[in-house]
Amino acid sequence: MTHYGRDVPYETFEIPDFRLACGRTLRPARVAYRTYGTLNTAKDNAVVYPTWYSGRHWDNEWLIGEGKALDPARWFVIVPNMLGNGLSSSPSNSPHPADGPSFPAIRVIDNVNAQHRLVTERFGVSTLALVLGWSMGAGQTYQWAVSHPEMVQRMLPFCGSARTAPHNQVFLDSLRAALQASVGFDGGRYPAERWPVQGLRAFARIYAGWGFSQAFYWDEVWRELGFASLEDFAVGFWEAFFLDGRDPNNLLTMLDTWWHGDVGATPGFTSTEQALASIRAKAIIMPAEKDLYFPPEDEAWAVSHMTNGAELRVIPGVWGHFAGGGANPVDTAFIDAAVGELLER
Amino acid sequence: MTHYGRDVPYETFEIPDFRLACGRTLRPARVAYRTYGTLNTAKDNAVVYPTWYSGRHWDNEWLIGEGKALDPARWFVIVPNMLGNGLSSSPSNSPHPADGPSFPAIRVIDNVNAQHRLVTERFGVSTLALVLGWSMGAGQTYQWAVSHPEMVQRMLPFCGSARTAPHNQVFLDSLRAALQASVGFDGGRYPAERWPVQGLRAFARIYAGWGFSQAFYWDEVWRELGFASLEDFAVGFWEAFFLDGRDPNNLLTMLDTWWHGDVGATPGFTSTEQALASIRAKAIIMPAEKDLYFPPEDEAWAVSHMTNGAELRVIPGVWGHFAGGGANPVDTAFIDAAVGELLER
Repeated sequence: MTHYGRDVPYETFEIPDFRLACGRTLRPARVAYRTYGTLNTAKDNAVVYPTWYSGRHWDNEWLIGEGKALDPARWFVIVPNMLGNGLSSSPSNSPHPADGPSFPAIRVIDNVNAQHRLVTERFGVSTLALVLGWSMGAGQTYQWAVSHPEMVQRMLPFCGSARTAPHNQVFLDSLRAALQASVGFDGGRYPAERWPVQGLRAFARIYAGWGFSQAFYWDEVWRELGFASLEDFAVGFWEAFFLDGRDPNNLLTMLDTWWHGDVGATPGFTSTEQALASIRAKAIIMPAEKDLYFPPEDEAWAVSHMTNGAELRVIPGVWGHFAGGGANPVDTAFIDAAVGELLER
Repeated sequence: MTHYGRDVPYETFEIPDFRLACGRTLRPARVAYRTYGTLNTAKDNAVVYPTWYSGRHWDNEWLIGEGKALDPARWFVIVPNMLGNGLSSSPSNSPHPADGPSFPAIRVIDNVNAQHRLVTERFGVSTLALVLGWSMGAGQTYQWAVSHPEMVQRMLPFCGSARTAPHNQVFLDSLRAALQASVGFDGGRYPAERWPVQGLRAFARIYAGWGFSQAFYWDEVWRELGFASLEDFAVGFWEAFFLDGRDPNNLLTMLDTWWHGDVGATPGFTSTEQALASIRAKAIIMPAEKDLYFPPEDEAWAVSHMTNGAELRVIPGVWGHFAGGGANPVDTAFIDAAVGELLER
């Protein structure tokens, strides 16, 4: 029987001297992860499902379970936490000289390099039935498919992109500027756990305008999540989200990873288009219809450069980016169905 | 010959005791304004063209001039500055006890009430050939048409709305939260001209993501404005914009006006729909195709409640909200043509 939730113990994989794309070294790097299900004897039922911006492994569990496509009775699902998320190596848990604002820059490829070592060294896995993920998890999915085409059989990035679009960068710049401007941020040298709360609240308020679509707010769909008013939603969903254990320096580290996302920066490639064209995995690419920072046009562009028969399948509806967050049953069923379909291809 | 620019002197209209919708009184209220052209003997060639969020009268001049629809040789164009914009009564120029953060709340209808007194008392005008405006100027246009249906013959609100949509409020809340969280804001009691620059920069960065569309950034259309890179545009356009004499308390006053925009709050009406249905002016309603905070769907909704044969005419292209800012010749020509057409109806 598989247990779920934030209170279930997780594992850690340690890499003693982990070289980063930026030139610095984490001594060591730690990747916190959980697995769901059992690796079979042929070692061909492994799935990698990386986390998203500030998400933790338990935040991915809505797509895993009995009766779902990612059924632990059949698949061995590995959920590695992203570097910087507070469980894997992060500003908040790293010793000097990598603590706080001195934590090194992390790129998407660093995450995938670390995850590759976890998968191959700890589990002896050399093939992945599927890599999938939401948002920055989708970015890691693309990177897996480009970095390890011989391993990745299938890919399903949802509400994300192979390269962070400029408008997305403008959004990220605004989050960073608001947090860094805040009373109490102090260049990232705030005392432990004494966070710049005003800046985090501003951060949450900015995010609120991007995470859901105009139509979501017009139609007051937040009522489906149990909130009584727009302000109730802003405080009870958004502020609560970013005030729940999310260290500002961690947020800035992951934000920087996101900002620089681009499979075209993979060694051996000279452009995003070339990297996309190299992908061999069977693919369903799933943007959300009204995603404001990963709009479907951008993913249509990516698919147009993929030569592997990748399918573009847009998640319909008004939930915007959070269509991929597991927050509503309709979108969850839509994504789950696609996962199941792809796994049969 | 008409002179243009920020260095041309402007006039001020003073209202000794001006009652506001919030219950407070400005003693006095001052409306700074400029006029272009000459009021004819019949007094039937007057046009009112209010300003937008943080705009000044000279920022409206791109739509006025010889050979344009709003030709001063034919029309008498009155551009009143919005309360809170730093020229009309504002936190930055009002004496105690209405100074800084103690400045009273201003509603759209307060602006229109003051403008109505300017137009009728100073100029003896009882009919307006046209009211038009961009963004918050569009909101004032709607309010004029609802408050004074006997006066307003034509209306052309562009890139704005009759009621501020909830998603738009979420955007505004994020601007406010970032500015108020900033080092140096100090509850609005910062020393004169010693502005919280970090907060203003964050404010500008947030705005940058909303003012133009995703496609505008994807296509790097900012190159048409002479910028060399995305960062160059962020600093040279957006930060420069909000660091150019824009007092934070003034910004917050106008933001609050915007947030509460709703013609349905007009005395005598019980809903936005009812207020919209009361409009008698000939109307062209012009949202921009990719406006992120005033999306065209919202204006389609407004037109569906107007009973005066209002025409919805969407400004095509990727410029988003700034399609109505006079920044590019194609959109400017599109708007100018509509103004000319409406003035002939």
